[in-house]
Amino acid sequence: MRTPVIGVMGGSKATPTVTEMAHELGTLIAQHGWILLNGGRNSGVMAASAAGAKSAGGIVIGILPDTTRAKASPDLDVAILTGTGDGRNLFNVLSSDIVVACPGALGTLAEVVLALKHNKHVVLLGFDLGSDFDKFRNKRQLTHADTPGQAVDLIAAALNTAGA
Amino acid sequence: MRTPVIGVMGGSKATPTVTEMAHELGTLIAQHGWILLNGGRNSGVMAASAAGAKSAGGIVIGILPDTTRAKASPDLDVAILTGTGDGRNLFNVLSSDIVVACPGALGTLAEVVLALKHNKHVVLLGFDLGSDFDKFRNKRQLTHADTPGQAVDLIAAALNTAGA
Amino acid sequence: MRTPVIGVMGGSKATPTVTEMAHELGTLIAQHGWILLNGGRNSGVMAASAAGAKSAGGIVIGILPDTTRAKASPDLDVAILTGTGDGRNLFNVLSSDIVVACPGALGTLAEVVLALKHNKHVVLLGFDLGSDFDKFRNKRQLTHADTPGQAVDLIAAALNTAGA
Amino acid sequence: MRTPVIGVMGGSKATPTVTEMAHELGTLIAQHGWILLNGGRNSGVMAASAAGAKSAGGIVIGILPDTTRAKASPDLDVAILTGTGDGRNLFNVLSSDIVVACPGALGTLAEVVLALKHNKHVVLLGFDLGSDFDKFRNKRQLTHADTPGQAVDLIAAALNTAGA
Repeated sequence: MRTPVIGVMGGSKATPTVTEMAHELGTLIAQHGWILLNGGRNSGVMAASAAGAKSAGGIVIGILPDTTRAKASPDLDVAILTGTGDGRNLFNVLSSDIVVACPGALGTLAEVVLALKHNKHVVLLGFDLGSDFDKFRNKRQLTHADTPGQAVDLIAAALNTAGA
Repeated sequence: MRTPVIGVMGGSKATPTVTEMAHELGTLIAQHGWILLNGGRNSGVMAASAAGAKSAGGIVIGILPDTTRAKASPDLDVAILTGTGDGRNLFNVLSSDIVVACPGALGTLAEVVLALKHNKHVVLLGFDLGSDFDKFRNKRQLTHADTPGQAVDLIAAALNTAGA
Repeated sequence: MRTPVIGVMGGSKATPTVTEMAHELGTLIAQHGWILLNGGRNSGVMAASAAGAKSAGGIVIGILPDTTRAKASPDLDVAILTGTGDGRNLFNVLSSDIVVACPGALGTLAEVVLALKHNKHVVLLGFDLGSDFDKFRNKRQLTHADTPGQAVDLIAAALNTAGA
Repeated sequence: MRTPVIGVMGGSKATPTVTEMAHELGTLIAQHGWILLNGGRNSGVMAASAAGAKSAGGIVIGILPDTTRAKASPDLDVAILTGTGDGRNLFNVLSSDIVVACPGALGTLAEVVLALKHNKHVVLLGFDLGSDFDKFRNKRQLTHADTPGQAVDLIAAALNTAGA
């Protein structure tokens, strides 16, 4: 049984509320023994979720748009450097067993869409999307959480289903 | 003054109605003297829009997910082979001055989101998206057309604005 | 019969001699009716070969490492924007029927190696490589030209062989 | 002080001798406390080096050309899935602090060239390259080892130099 990889997506700019939420999410992911994977930059949801996971002794992998570590979070165990810019969003999604999206802008929305396309379960944490996505809600591929604790419960349930 | 490049996105599977619409759109793009750029495969909206443009003497560029021309439309003037799978969607968007999205599935939606993120004008042809996208409608970055003729008018207007 | 695409690789910095050679190569490629494909930037072998082809009325496609046209040669008919940095070297090679390498640095060498790996015929123009490449010389996949005229003869011969 | 990441490149097909060498190299990398990064497939140098590292309790990251884990080595701690084919070779190189190349074919040579281009120290293990690479030998960016033990000594020395 390999360790699940949980992808955490979200804005590179984040309000204090979202930052705190991403930090708690990272902490809980690490406490469950899962690997946290994100976009690796030292800003917004990426930095906060990495710091949270690290504070709980977890493993953090960042897949960066850059060719160097100059903008990498200091909390990464491994920085995957791609030099592909936004192209790395697809790698984040493909490499995650489950994707959690925190509030963000179009980059986050693109990752949600890519994740659904590649048959990943997506948890929306702290925000929701409109009726364009009802089809995925109805088959429970897309779920919604108000708190990091709820998100982690949804992750656990989705991992159980995938492993069944 | 370089020739504008119009990106045409849409499903690799298409109904007869959508296929006909994509063919007419390609024809009109070529008649306006614009270069048509799409995903290059010999199926759905890609094949139909390429065939339409070619029938009107236009230039067609396809950016393919593949490493070979095996699945390429015969109507391409140049096949850009990338071997990046869905990763090529970003290249399509970046390389287009204006993006027209015909009905499709999640791949098309991902391209719409990427196009908006990279500040491209997007015309939705024959379908619409929900309230998640109101922000882009309100600033006229996202517009809607019912017919290929309307789409081409919106393209022309957006090119004028961009060139101003 | 589609129009052959000839990839021209080489340094982004070039001596006057190499610049002149690349310009003449581009001119001859266009005069033969072939499409010229290169890395698209407005410098070195890329700029010179594009200008040569354009001066002879040819079609030039550039596959750029960038997300915008800011550094693109003004002589491109179509700029393929990828945002993948050096990652675009693979796309250049895959999209070319034949590859001509002008003198360059490690980027050019990497493209030669990738081209050989993907079974492309490679013409080295104005330089040569060492014994590591004898295997490809012996099966005539790798050839050497001293002048643009010779390079074009080798291209024509390789196209004939590939089309046979 | 973050943990160094050592990239191990080499053929997807390997002789028994090369397989044994790659396995021992992986073991030694893990025993030194370094993270092993490779191309992630369950064949050749990739599979052997991963198995070696895992047998010594190390951490193994694989960056795969694929969109799924179907061809992944069972010894990976994290599989980075890219769907970029050979395009992932660049990511391997960028993400490694030091690159060790075991005997391979053109893919391995391409990785050596890319690594040199991106200023990585490269250790050639069990083979050598010709005079095209003298420039990099002379400045000690390219070194040669006959055994995994020697390779690990060269890695340690290069890490010391880089960290100085």
